[in-house]
Amino acid sequence: MLQSALEYARANRERYLDQLFDLLRIPSVSTLSEHKPDIQRAAEWLAADMRRVGLKNVEVLPTDGNPVVYGEWLEAGSDAPTVLIYGHYDVQPADPLELWETPPFEPQIRDGEIYARGASDDKGQMFTHIKAIESILATEGRLPINVKLIFEGEEEVGSPSLGPFVVANKEKLAADSSLISDGRIVGPDCPSIVYALRGLTYMEIRIRGPKRDLHSGGYGGSVHNPAQALAEIIAALHDEQGRVTIPGFYDRVRPLSEEERAALRKVPYSLEQWQEETGLEKPWGEPEYTLLERITARPTCEVNGIWGGFQGEGSKTVIPAEAGAKISMRLVPDQDPDEIARLFAGYVESLAPDTVTVEVIKHVGGWPAITPIDSPEMRAAARAYEAAWGVAPVFTREGGSIPIVATFQKELNAPAVLMGFGLDDNVHSPNEHFRLAHFYRGIDTVIHYYYYLVE
Amino acid sequence: MLQSALEYARANRERYLDQLFDLLRIPSVSTLSEHKPDIQRAAEWLAADMRRVGLKNVEVLPTDGNPVVYGEWLEAGSDAPTVLIYGHYDVQPADPLELWETPPFEPQIRDGEIYARGASDDKGQMFTHIKAIESILATEGRLPINVKLIFEGEEEVGSPSLGPFVVANKEKLAADSSLISDGRIVGPDCPSIVYALRGLTYMEIRIRGPKRDLHSGGYGGSVHNPAQALAEIIAALHDEQGRVTIPGFYDRVRPLSEEERAALRKVPYSLEQWQEETGLEKPWGEPEYTLLERITARPTCEVNGIWGGFQGEGSKTVIPAEAGAKISMRLVPDQDPDEIARLFAGYVESLAPDTVTVEVIKHVGGWPAITPIDSPEMRAAARAYEAAWGVAPVFTREGGSIPIVATFQKELNAPAVLMGFGLDDNVHSPNEHFRLAHFYRGIDTVIHYYYYLVE
Repeated sequence: MLQSALEYARANRERYLDQLFDLLRIPSVSTLSEHKPDIQRAAEWLAADMRRVGLKNVEVLPTDGNPVVYGEWLEAGSDAPTVLIYGHYDVQPADPLELWETPPFEPQIRDGEIYARGASDDKGQMFTHIKAIESILATEGRLPINVKLIFEGEEEVGSPSLGPFVVANKEKLAADSSLISDGRIVGPDCPSIVYALRGLTYMEIRIRGPKRDLHSGGYGGSVHNPAQALAEIIAALHDEQGRVTIPGFYDRVRPLSEEERAALRKVPYSLEQWQEETGLEKPWGEPEYTLLERITARPTCEVNGIWGGFQGEGSKTVIPAEAGAKISMRLVPDQDPDEIARLFAGYVESLAPDTVTVEVIKHVGGWPAITPIDSPEMRAAARAYEAAWGVAPVFTREGGSIPIVATFQKELNAPAVLMGFGLDDNVHSPNEHFRLAHFYRGIDTVIHYYYYLVE
Repeated sequence: MLQSALEYARANRERYLDQLFDLLRIPSVSTLSEHKPDIQRAAEWLAADMRRVGLKNVEVLPTDGNPVVYGEWLEAGSDAPTVLIYGHYDVQPADPLELWETPPFEPQIRDGEIYARGASDDKGQMFTHIKAIESILATEGRLPINVKLIFEGEEEVGSPSLGPFVVANKEKLAADSSLISDGRIVGPDCPSIVYALRGLTYMEIRIRGPKRDLHSGGYGGSVHNPAQALAEIIAALHDEQGRVTIPGFYDRVRPLSEEERAALRKVPYSLEQWQEETGLEKPWGEPEYTLLERITARPTCEVNGIWGGFQGEGSKTVIPAEAGAKISMRLVPDQDPDEIARLFAGYVESLAPDTVTVEVIKHVGGWPAITPIDSPEMRAAARAYEAAWGVAPVFTREGGSIPIVATFQKELNAPAVLMGFGLDDNVHSPNEHFRLAHFYRGIDTVIHYYYYLVE
């Protein structure tokens, strides 16, 4: 059954690629309002293809923004798992156009790569799921699992409508796990599965001192300088080892298991790579954790911006009336972004001297996410990669956040499997591309995954 | 002799005022190039009046900018002291014109005040010196001391030509002390003499981290955040008592004598005044010094500006590639601005972690100045104020700098007597004014001073 689906996929490669090209030709740029008709066109195109391959109840559902395309196949029985498959059909703008070697919406193959805007992010990766389903349904008439597909058109503008859509459609979207192909693997010969993402708590500190900027000659020495008070607070946020000193900050951090640490050590991430990417010689941070662990598995506290007083050229002798900083914390399971915001605010207020006024403001927050590497989904995903790639994937974590993953986990209790097939494909840049071999292997991986989930 | 000069001054008050009005009518605004002819006219007017009163070798001397008006009377003999009298004939612009109750260059008396741009800053105060000299020469035919007068036309644009002029004319300007009336006294019933000014060393710190702004998700926890490194350095510049921690910073600070501290305690400067001016409840700084001492007699280290990373609205999760701060130190005698710059740079470099690159840049600097309160000049000035005002002046210090004072002290070894007659006269603002009584008392004070200097 698995084999026949794989053979069908292989036999239909050219047709699948032609179809992907059709989709890539639609300039469904979500950041530019003049492309609204293209957004609609891409949604309709997808819905038509989903109906054609045999998905049921396919709909183009309006939201306050761009439509969500939905489809399902739920005939595998109630014992079979239900997987919620996510992707996005909108793309980044193509500017600057003059840097593209071939036009962004006229897909071409060069050197084994599909060149087009959206080839990797995310049309090419998203499309593997529809083609995997087509391959199985065409040969077997049924899928081994239940699937619900949800493709949004606002990912590149921050998915403003998707969170409310998920909350409003919890029952419709109910699933045991989610499956997302919108990312990258470590290397062409090193498939990888991201099993955890960091969350975020983003804060701002504002320190107010004198009622107006003061002449430092006339008042210097008698006024607690707000910029200095701010520096004193920021300096107190870490100890000398780079640990965050906010009381209670680490209380809910799920310790790294030995299995996880062993898995992370297999991820090729070298000091040299870090040095090249950052331009720095020497890393910083918690000494008892590896570089990759610091970046992905440990919570952090970062100054994202700082300001106050005179920033121009030359000199101006002023005591600023105000100084401020944007400070965000990356969170790991099971830290709670709201609780961390409270702990941060409480600590900063406890540090605040009575010579200035300190205000702590909360900006955005997001939950961390994790799908344990020993879960059935992760084990199936690892086997699927190994089958399609010929080599076992490494398990890794990412330091950033993907809000939809936390939303699926939090609202639907559907932990995510991040099954990426991309590389460093110039996503968001000119000459975006996607390896043709990865498009095909992606389809194979998904087919394997469906079957392995029920083995 | 003193009495007859005072009587002459009294008898000629109206004429002196008329002459001042003539000078005030010349809109010698140095910040606006269209007033160049007025600058020249004011200089010529001054020179003519100086010649008329009997000053010798009066010249309008060209500089790279606006001319310096020079005059002298050196016939008091080599035993008599030589005083270098400084003032400036240029004024601030009058904008916004609509806020003036009467036109800025049409002087008027209202409620005992002379209203005009330059009335207090500095034409009215400067003119007291010419009229004091006129009063003495008219009655005695000679002065008790030697005088050299130097009036510049670029004070309101930062005196760019005066420093080079002084350096180029050291012999011509050689004097035992200088005398400057371009400031204010504490109150109409509380004359005051500023006997010390703070100097300045203005620095900049730039911290460079990664080669570009990094995503805090992708690198946070492994990179020493430049804004945090900067905060750590700034926080280390003071101890918990507000003392500057730069090694050697206080080494050359001349201790406050008990006499000075007693004199400063007589200056009316209250916590309430400080609170009203700053809008703050609670002062900060070295606990063993009074507010006024902290502001005027102690060196400081101030953050004048700080910046780095994202300063816009909302949130952006970036690790800034760079952060920086402008930091200046107010200096007191006998701190050396260049040495302090070296000490600062050395300390900051010693604090700099090897995970970032720290650059320390030196901006402007200026020497502190002091004329001891027990010097003959200060004693004569105090007696002169007491004679003219009916009340002994208080001795005070200022927290800011007047570059020309340091220049006279450093280049000519001529310590300054700052004999101000102004109040809070809306200088630099609409409706600048100068008390008529202070114009007359100023002339009386100067006459007294000349005689007391040789008593």
